[in-house]
Amino acid sequence: MNAAAPNIADSVGVVVPIDVHFDVPLRLKSGAVMPQYDLRYETYGTLNEQRSNAVLVCHALNASHHVAGWYANDPRDVGWWDNLIGPGKPVDTNRFFVIGVNNLGGCHGSTGPASINPATGRPWGADFPVVTVEDWVEAQARLATHLGIERFAAVIGGSLGAMQALQWTMSHPDRVGLALVSAAAPKLSAQNIAFNEVARQAITTDPDFHGGNYYAHGVVPRRGLRLARMLGHITYLSDDAMAEKFGRELRGGEIKFGFDVEFEIESYLRYQGDKFSTYFDANTYLRITKALDYFDPALEHGGNLSAAVKGAKARYLVVSFTSDWRFSPARSREIVKALLDNRLDVTYAEIDAPHGHDAFLMDDPRYHSLIRATMESLPL
Amino acid sequence: MNAAAPNIADSVGVVVPIDVHFDVPLRLKSGAVMPQYDLRYETYGTLNEQRSNAVLVCHALNASHHVAGWYANDPRDVGWWDNLIGPGKPVDTNRFFVIGVNNLGGCHGSTGPASINPATGRPWGADFPVVTVEDWVEAQARLATHLGIERFAAVIGGSLGAMQALQWTMSHPDRVGLALVSAAAPKLSAQNIAFNEVARQAITTDPDFHGGNYYAHGVVPRRGLRLARMLGHITYLSDDAMAEKFGRELRGGEIKFGFDVEFEIESYLRYQGDKFSTYFDANTYLRITKALDYFDPALEHGGNLSAAVKGAKARYLVVSFTSDWRFSPARSREIVKALLDNRLDVTYAEIDAPHGHDAFLMDDPRYHSLIRATMESLPL
Repeated sequence: MNAAAPNIADSVGVVVPIDVHFDVPLRLKSGAVMPQYDLRYETYGTLNEQRSNAVLVCHALNASHHVAGWYANDPRDVGWWDNLIGPGKPVDTNRFFVIGVNNLGGCHGSTGPASINPATGRPWGADFPVVTVEDWVEAQARLATHLGIERFAAVIGGSLGAMQALQWTMSHPDRVGLALVSAAAPKLSAQNIAFNEVARQAITTDPDFHGGNYYAHGVVPRRGLRLARMLGHITYLSDDAMAEKFGRELRGGEIKFGFDVEFEIESYLRYQGDKFSTYFDANTYLRITKALDYFDPALEHGGNLSAAVKGAKARYLVVSFTSDWRFSPARSREIVKALLDNRLDVTYAEIDAPHGHDAFLMDDPRYHSLIRATMESLPL
Repeated sequence: MNAAAPNIADSVGVVVPIDVHFDVPLRLKSGAVMPQYDLRYETYGTLNEQRSNAVLVCHALNASHHVAGWYANDPRDVGWWDNLIGPGKPVDTNRFFVIGVNNLGGCHGSTGPASINPATGRPWGADFPVVTVEDWVEAQARLATHLGIERFAAVIGGSLGAMQALQWTMSHPDRVGLALVSAAAPKLSAQNIAFNEVARQAITTDPDFHGGNYYAHGVVPRRGLRLARMLGHITYLSDDAMAEKFGRELRGGEIKFGFDVEFEIESYLRYQGDKFSTYFDANTYLRITKALDYFDPALEHGGNLSAAVKGAKARYLVVSFTSDWRFSPARSREIVKALLDNRLDVTYAEIDAPHGHDAFLMDDPRYHSLIRATMESLPL
């Protein structure tokens, strides 16, 4: 969430989320079935008569359907990709109809572990199934159909959102014009999984976790969520960005030889952890990290990503950032190679940005002008 | 600890730790005073008549005085640098008298937070002072004096141990012949501090921490220690080493869509965390990470490391490892530059090893032959 005051001139302005109920059961990759569920979404711009100008925005780990604009009752709650999406912005809402959706299993309005399980009348908790990138794409496809959108002009996302964009082109090759795959990897490395696992263990070993059924106890595993978020932030920033932003600056000007905050970086991490732990659902966090771990489209093709991508028809804009050590440019190049092996239309940009993984959220002019030019070139 | 069966032929064999009591108060950098304390140490080889062949081994985060050999009652408990130190090994105990010492504040026999505070008759706990690299060097210097060693032929260490070796040459320039500074940094980066801070927060927010006075409650903050160790292991290994060792191998052969161990890397981290949490003292862990954070010899010289090193007289062997992302080669080069600015005798090697930070513990032949040649060249 961006706490800066909204700029009315180039923003979509006040937005209102919408809930839609689906009562056709959704069979998940795990074999579990969601008998019914709600999705919360927002839209910006206007769907044209041909229904050809729709853009789906897929969110990453901790974001939501609230992609652009702000809420009338909270003007400081600006959407997470507001710098990219709006009238005259790279994803121009004067031309495109943009949809943000909170994924199934989320904690921002769509059905998730904190929702009531109709079968029991109690929160789903530990019983909420594990969801995958493929499951999210299916749920998003149903939402598209509900909105009368047969084909997206573009499906866009960064990080885990980019994995969804990539999956869209494999699951529904006829329904995607362009996929923006920003700061992505075709699958997590052992190190990526390791970080996720430490975060999960922090949550599940918190005494307030109660095996995932903490709702009934009136508590949340706040300590664990806080640690998970602190750790996450380390992996979102580059070493250099941290050095630039915090260095070894002392909070109090001098060393105190104690265990209170000494260095600015400690203060930053504690603050981010504290804030996150007040609003994010731990069961959702667990499931989103599992969706990341499981994403591996090549797995069913003997590890051959090129074979996995076979059949895709989209155009691709793949972007990586030099300082991203979570999903380094080498990981994006694996995706590019697989796409090129299939003679697909791919533009690849490796942007020399200092911010680390978080760069996909920044308004770097080279990044944004590339997206702008690509979006402008889309035929509607 | 190396669980391999000991090789009698080239090992120092059975060793016996020794405790020594110091009752001259030690004033710490923080201003706190240790009125009295014990140090536990081991020695291998024989001190020559001129007392000129002593080598001090400084330990890193979780190691101890038990550097080589094994214990009669536990032959599997082999010292942590046994591959380097022994008869005929690179640090040859036929020639050198080698000393390993558990640092002040440790939990392997030297006085630390779990020891009884004579002033209260209870464990020190939260009252145990913060200790620094400089403090450890002073305590080690007293031990040397106690053993009749005026000057070490070499002070050697990796990681935090290397910081102590470097500090020795600044604190006691006349008492060190050679410093082996392996896998080191002249100070932690913001990212390094950030990882330490997450580990500390895991420990201090564990409900069993009780503000550091858990001894009285008959518990230990095991969850926190476990997380700290899991996180530590991620930073000790390179991304490539993890990929090589674990990749995305599934523990059970297929995806289970649950929260038990799925990937081998998860199993490894949980195992390492569980094991560590049964024997390491949390208060020691907290203090050692703080000693790392605080180490910054340039600080009192306006950030000028070259000025900090002025006055040093030792010869240096500085070694870094290409895949070490905790303390990358660039960090070692900062040390080398400062030493060269002072026209000191420095050999620097950047070893193309895949193991990450842990490479300093491995028996890479290039690494070991470099240490061997350097040690052989030392005049006694």
